[in-house]
Amino acid sequence: MKRGEVKSDLAWATPTKVVVQGLDLCEEIVGKVDFGQMAFLEFFGRLPNENEDRMFNAMMVILVEHGITPSSLATRLTYSGAPEAVQASVAAGLLGLGSVFVGSIDGAAKMLQEALPNPDEHTDLTETASNIVAELRSRRELIPGLGHPFHKPVDPRTTALFRVASETGFDGPYIRLMALIAEEASSRAGKDIPLNVTGAMAAIASEFRLPWRACRGLAVAARAVGLVGHILEEMRQPMADEIYMRIEDEASAHLRPGA
Amino acid sequence: MKRGEVKSDLAWATPTKVVVQGLDLCEEIVGKVDFGQMAFLEFFGRLPNENEDRMFNAMMVILVEHGITPSSLATRLTYSGAPEAVQASVAAGLLGLGSVFVGSIDGAAKMLQEALPNPDEHTDLTETASNIVAELRSRRELIPGLGHPFHKPVDPRTTALFRVASETGFDGPYIRLMALIAEEASSRAGKDIPLNVTGAMAAIASEFRLPWRACRGLAVAARAVGLVGHILEEMRQPMADEIYMRIEDEASAHLRPGA
Amino acid sequence: MKRGEVKSDLAWATPTKVVVQGLDLCEEIVGKVDFGQMAFLEFFGRLPNENEDRMFNAMMVILVEHGITPSSLATRLTYSGAPEAVQASVAAGLLGLGSVFVGSIDGAAKMLQEALPNPDEHTDLTETASNIVAELRSRRELIPGLGHPFHKPVDPRTTALFRVASETGFDGPYIRLMALIAEEASSRAGKDIPLNVTGAMAAIASEFRLPWRACRGLAVAARAVGLVGHILEEMRQPMADEIYMRIEDEASAHLRPGA
Amino acid sequence: MKRGEVKSDLAWATPTKVVVQGLDLCEEIVGKVDFGQMAFLEFFGRLPNENEDRMFNAMMVILVEHGITPSSLATRLTYSGAPEAVQASVAAGLLGLGSVFVGSIDGAAKMLQEALPNPDEHTDLTETASNIVAELRSRRELIPGLGHPFHKPVDPRTTALFRVASETGFDGPYIRLMALIAEEASSRAGKDIPLNVTGAMAAIASEFRLPWRACRGLAVAARAVGLVGHILEEMRQPMADEIYMRIEDEASAHLRPGA
Repeated sequence: MKRGEVKSDLAWATPTKVVVQGLDLCEEIVGKVDFGQMAFLEFFGRLPNENEDRMFNAMMVILVEHGITPSSLATRLTYSGAPEAVQASVAAGLLGLGSVFVGSIDGAAKMLQEALPNPDEHTDLTETASNIVAELRSRRELIPGLGHPFHKPVDPRTTALFRVASETGFDGPYIRLMALIAEEASSRAGKDIPLNVTGAMAAIASEFRLPWRACRGLAVAARAVGLVGHILEEMRQPMADEIYMRIEDEASAHLRPGA
Repeated sequence: MKRGEVKSDLAWATPTKVVVQGLDLCEEIVGKVDFGQMAFLEFFGRLPNENEDRMFNAMMVILVEHGITPSSLATRLTYSGAPEAVQASVAAGLLGLGSVFVGSIDGAAKMLQEALPNPDEHTDLTETASNIVAELRSRRELIPGLGHPFHKPVDPRTTALFRVASETGFDGPYIRLMALIAEEASSRAGKDIPLNVTGAMAAIASEFRLPWRACRGLAVAARAVGLVGHILEEMRQPMADEIYMRIEDEASAHLRPGA
Repeated sequence: MKRGEVKSDLAWATPTKVVVQGLDLCEEIVGKVDFGQMAFLEFFGRLPNENEDRMFNAMMVILVEHGITPSSLATRLTYSGAPEAVQASVAAGLLGLGSVFVGSIDGAAKMLQEALPNPDEHTDLTETASNIVAELRSRRELIPGLGHPFHKPVDPRTTALFRVASETGFDGPYIRLMALIAEEASSRAGKDIPLNVTGAMAAIASEFRLPWRACRGLAVAARAVGLVGHILEEMRQPMADEIYMRIEDEASAHLRPGA
Repeated sequence: MKRGEVKSDLAWATPTKVVVQGLDLCEEIVGKVDFGQMAFLEFFGRLPNENEDRMFNAMMVILVEHGITPSSLATRLTYSGAPEAVQASVAAGLLGLGSVFVGSIDGAAKMLQEALPNPDEHTDLTETASNIVAELRSRRELIPGLGHPFHKPVDPRTTALFRVASETGFDGPYIRLMALIAEEASSRAGKDIPLNVTGAMAAIASEFRLPWRACRGLAVAARAVGLVGHILEEMRQPMADEIYMRIEDEASAHLRPGA
């Protein structure tokens, strides 16, 4: 087993100073850098320019809140058992952000980044899209980033994100490739298949050159904010106990005597 | 057991529209509201004014990144075992945000909010501070929000946050009470006891009228962002395996034959 | 900050041998020690005798499965989003085992262990019980380990556990004190207040001299087994998506146009 | 979206009775069924016979404790921040049981169960093993369940588990196929490649007809027990703070002034 070094460049401190990503936390960050810029700084190691700032914030805000989902229900149910441990309720809600829901960002970003390892090189994107769709169809696999059970034929969040991409100059090869994949898949299927919000985020995160293995992290950080919103609402207006009692009652009704 | 309703005001959608906290996500939020404002919207149900925006962002950025901590180590060690489940690594790091570290925000906010249930009423804050310190000392309990093993005699993050509070008009009764508690405790102890960053955050969150039970949530959401930063660094520059191997080796050295 | 050693006595290995708690895993544990004895070995550092084995197993089995609870719902909802990460689903279900449900074991065990720091010393248990109840009532606090919304006037699980305690010689001072506290509380309240299963477990765990801060761990380990049972059932007979869709529909009905 | 029923067969209760998996918890389980049998009951819906009991317990005990691992370190580090939330510490340790460590059980079980969908049918296992190895090698993929960085050329835990399998009549087609895959892989590689403990567990779990998607659950439940053991040791003999301070110091040394 290789023995190596232990090294982190993220932060250091003295009793009178804290330095984060090379910036003095108290002098250069607090009061000057906002939460979105701070997230950018954490993910990319530098502050964003104006266009990056606008594009990045658009991507972060879109996944904060989706109302009642399996994830926000897990947070609320956990809160009802452990209200003293808010961190555990947020964590419980994050744990379901796997392959079925927002985790699909990774799959779409992998598809895009493996198809365009060098995005600055000239590539025939129409041909690339066609090849990707053909291959996934031949393997009878779903195309990541496409399709939505509810937002169809168009996912309005994709439209909104791509509008900001166009306004900020972020409409590069990954976004074009993702859109072409959706067109090609729709054309082969003979019906409009929506490019969904995770596909759009995967394309934009790829434009930011974020490695695909980390793309899900954006959604996780954004959703953590939203889950705190659910905890605050659960404190004011609880639903967890009611859900539990209803479901328990119905789920075991067939087992109880006289059933 | 009371049977009630199940109701959430956070979001709803149609196939062509998503509404979050009463705002159209695609028309009124994406590209217009930044991540910090979105977090404010989630926690308070409305967008911030300019001063609120600046104060809130200052509070959110300050807890994003603390470098290597037990929490970020838990994230990195989890990532080394389950790199396919980034959500689980973030969750693992959040789980340690309990009573010892940032969870102390709750305790300080509880102390402040119970002392000033009606912050708009005139109260003799010096007397209140004196009573709080006297009572906690008589019970030999720690005063939440005070003391730091490293940032002493002053926590520079508190200074930075309170500077923004002063500039934005947020220096209200909770901040004054927290500062008076620190003065009183220092005076009784005969040495400077720092008002630490969690005490400062508790005071500011109280100025925002955030219920004390939810204050830890701010830190949890902020830290989720920072933990994604640690995952990105662990991907580029891993330390988890090295830590595990070193510690395993040392921890069991006394048990192995020939020891 | 004190700098010390890093030492663990739990296990060590050579390429051909694994030693756990001083026993050769492959020669002395596998095929010879069962799962309950292994759990005892982990918690107490030695194998149980026959009576300890029976009492310990009784305590472990009683909390494995409670049907549909907030905790098992959190596991099922998490599984529906991340079926590839079974560990995350189990973790999500464990996270709600806090102060409201099984975590109350800690509170009851703390009460018992602080009242009888030296259980082998002669103490007037009736007087101790009376003092505890009087003090908690004067502070208007709930008595941990007492009361149940459903299993009343008697929690049948307590009866079952205490029967095994009596058969195995485990009915020592902590069990007697817990029973006297329930009697005293009932007498003062003028109605039968049940000694619930977490109160019973706290008393038995205290008889095993398990520190109160760790008592919740027994329940957590037991429940992990049960949550895997829920995942297996969710695989065969899912309910998570149905729950999510019903609740989402009902919770946002008042927000949708035409509502 | 299909709307269906919500149904669970695991448990039900009346005020005086709790029924788990069809058995009366207080009359038929407590004091009569041990923790290993209870786990079997949860996973398979019935109590084990004597051979099943011995084989199942062997499988459960083998993964309880591995000493210091990334997983047990995550538990200890989380405990140092949130000692009041033992459930969160156990959960944090479970979260790293993903694709790199014990989660590989799923992959090996998938390989075996897809190769032998009907294990009672006669199949030429040598040919099946040869085909599996040839195909994975042609795709340059690792063979799940094979190889170990430390326990080589033989994993002693596999030997121990397969000995119990032979003694209990569990040495069926899945175990034979897994052993043949290891032989074939070793022969093609020209060196002994160990059949590791997760490969052995996958084969035995397959003999129990446990679906591959759930196999990781066995390890998760077993490890939950072991992680409570680590929490108990961390309470007596802490290492988390020392680890954190050492690593923080070393990791940021290059950033501090004068470095």
